[in-house]
Amino acid sequence: MKKEYIKRLESIQVYLQNEKIDIAMITDPANVFYYTGFLSNPHERFMALVIDNKNEKTTLFVPALDVEIARNDSAVQTIVPISDEENPFTKLQTNVSANILTFGLEKKAVNIFRYQHLQENFPTASYIDIQPYISSERMKKSPIEIEQMRKPIQIIERVLAEGIKKVQTGMSEMDLTAELEYLMRKFGADGPSFSTIVLSGEKSALPHGTPGSRTIENGDFLLIDFGVIKDGYCSDITRTFLIGEASKKQKEIYNIVLQSTNAGLDAVKAGVPLRTFDIAARNVIKEKGYGEYFNNRIGHGLGIEVHEEPSIHESNADIAEPGLLFTIEPGIYIPNYGGVRIEDNVYINEEGKADVLTSFPKELQIL
Amino acid sequence: MKKEYIKRLESIQVYLQNEKIDIAMITDPANVFYYTGFLSNPHERFMALVIDNKNEKTTLFVPALDVEIARNDSAVQTIVPISDEENPFTKLQTNVSANILTFGLEKKAVNIFRYQHLQENFPTASYIDIQPYISSERMKKSPIEIEQMRKPIQIIERVLAEGIKKVQTGMSEMDLTAELEYLMRKFGADGPSFSTIVLSGEKSALPHGTPGSRTIENGDFLLIDFGVIKDGYCSDITRTFLIGEASKKQKEIYNIVLQSTNAGLDAVKAGVPLRTFDIAARNVIKEKGYGEYFNNRIGHGLGIEVHEEPSIHESNADIAEPGLLFTIEPGIYIPNYGGVRIEDNVYINEEGKADVLTSFPKELQIL
Repeated sequence: MKKEYIKRLESIQVYLQNEKIDIAMITDPANVFYYTGFLSNPHERFMALVIDNKNEKTTLFVPALDVEIARNDSAVQTIVPISDEENPFTKLQTNVSANILTFGLEKKAVNIFRYQHLQENFPTASYIDIQPYISSERMKKSPIEIEQMRKPIQIIERVLAEGIKKVQTGMSEMDLTAELEYLMRKFGADGPSFSTIVLSGEKSALPHGTPGSRTIENGDFLLIDFGVIKDGYCSDITRTFLIGEASKKQKEIYNIVLQSTNAGLDAVKAGVPLRTFDIAARNVIKEKGYGEYFNNRIGHGLGIEVHEEPSIHESNADIAEPGLLFTIEPGIYIPNYGGVRIEDNVYINEEGKADVLTSFPKELQIL
Repeated sequence: MKKEYIKRLESIQVYLQNEKIDIAMITDPANVFYYTGFLSNPHERFMALVIDNKNEKTTLFVPALDVEIARNDSAVQTIVPISDEENPFTKLQTNVSANILTFGLEKKAVNIFRYQHLQENFPTASYIDIQPYISSERMKKSPIEIEQMRKPIQIIERVLAEGIKKVQTGMSEMDLTAELEYLMRKFGADGPSFSTIVLSGEKSALPHGTPGSRTIENGDFLLIDFGVIKDGYCSDITRTFLIGEASKKQKEIYNIVLQSTNAGLDAVKAGVPLRTFDIAARNVIKEKGYGEYFNNRIGHGLGIEVHEEPSIHESNADIAEPGLLFTIEPGIYIPNYGGVRIEDNVYINEEGKADVLTSFPKELQIL
């Protein structure tokens, strides 16, 4: 694995040289993990991987209380701890080359407060956004990363298979969530990759609803959208079930979404605009007259973060490439009635073809 | 509860008028919740509460897929949905007064990317940080908030009481974490308030370690640092246990930390600098010769976020006021040996005295 980090660091160094960027400050925890193997949420504290292109020195700045873990996990072994009383911007300045003219940073990760401090400490610098470069690198998953992605996907599918055995009428959404999250840990997850969504009945119409005290009853839709983190990589899968029985309309909606998911997956390949996948899935829903009930994008990239590049939406004209890994997750959400979403994880392999990484059955299941 | 939001909104409107700020854009999800009751993590999507002081109009902008929940939860009922294909900055501009000269925002919540978009859309504006004002408001918990805080604290203490009954030698940190998080949900939590920390043996020396496959064995320290979110408010408590037996040195360290926590809590009152509480607790550890093994601040504010204002550290000279609610959590962390942390949640009541909200016993317990 160490080799992989060295390769990534070498790539960004080449990029910095080509772009004549003197120094790169990487503070997004997901990016720090991508380049070092050190996964940490520093909350409001300062953490940064700093690649000084002028003196070819790479340094990891971490909160003092995380220094032991950083020493253990990070491929970058030049580590500077910063205690709560220190000014991180001064410490940064004293540890890098003087006269920085071009300063690379992630414009979506650095807030105005930090930006103004940087401008004070590096007054001669102009600031360049390096996130597009990093995103383009992270987007193209390496074979090692695909193997890493299999683990959180295997865990979550095992959780789903065991978890639905526990579903009973009268059980609250929250109780089922407890069971599912327990199984995540039991099956080796480091934790949920996002806030677990378990929605029943009319609540399943909320694309981002939260589990509550509503109990699962006969005739309900039961929508489960969840994922786990394992060794820094995230899964994200949705299945919708019916409880006890399914009405004609419920079956109709379910089957349209199922067709839509399959149409989206079938469209996935390299060499075409990303919007193609959205349009293919969306058209199924539109043609059946439910277009007004599907108002979000078809999918998003998945990897170190549960939402990352690329965004698969109707107007994304970027061309699909091998290595991309993303969700396909169409849905029909009818307010005060209920909703169905069926979500798989797919990647574009080296031959430019779709490999669906999720394997949990998608046919209508009545629990 | 609705009254509370109206009162908060009225207060910020008065502040904006006094400071001659034309418009305030609040995007930090914790702040949006504070002013509306709508709790949502929009991930990379745009969500903002916008208080237009020129036309006295308050609008909540939310991702289109969250609009149903926002309508249900938000005290602000003028809601503008933004779909994934729309440009939120253009949408913002068309929905507020023209000729904005002073634009209030949270400088720690708005990234450079968004800042530059704002500057394009509001070219005549100068930008003012409103986070210090919002923090000063949020810091002073109202009686209603103290009641809200009791819920996540009660839940986590119940989880701790039940959870330690499940501890057995040979059990991994991860398995115990699964049990604890299961109980969180079972006892009504909306989820953990941060990544649950369960560390055994020498791993307890890591202030921010993560639970792994290490099994709990006789003679181990067992450090549990965790909390839950309930209805938008967070708890955060730490207790350290001994497994099977305690050596003389382990007991010594434990009792020093216990004295330190108590000294910190005893020091808490209104009218003195916040650093007083840090120094009181730290001195106990220093005097016993363990000063080098305690390198972080004594505590942090707690409420809607698990880390919020105030920061209780050695050099914070701000004066303690009624309403402040924070942790006191000294520790001794000896690398490759083990560590002890004992953390309570305390607030300063209207009489200026400390009310310790946590009640789980702090005396040494051998499991």
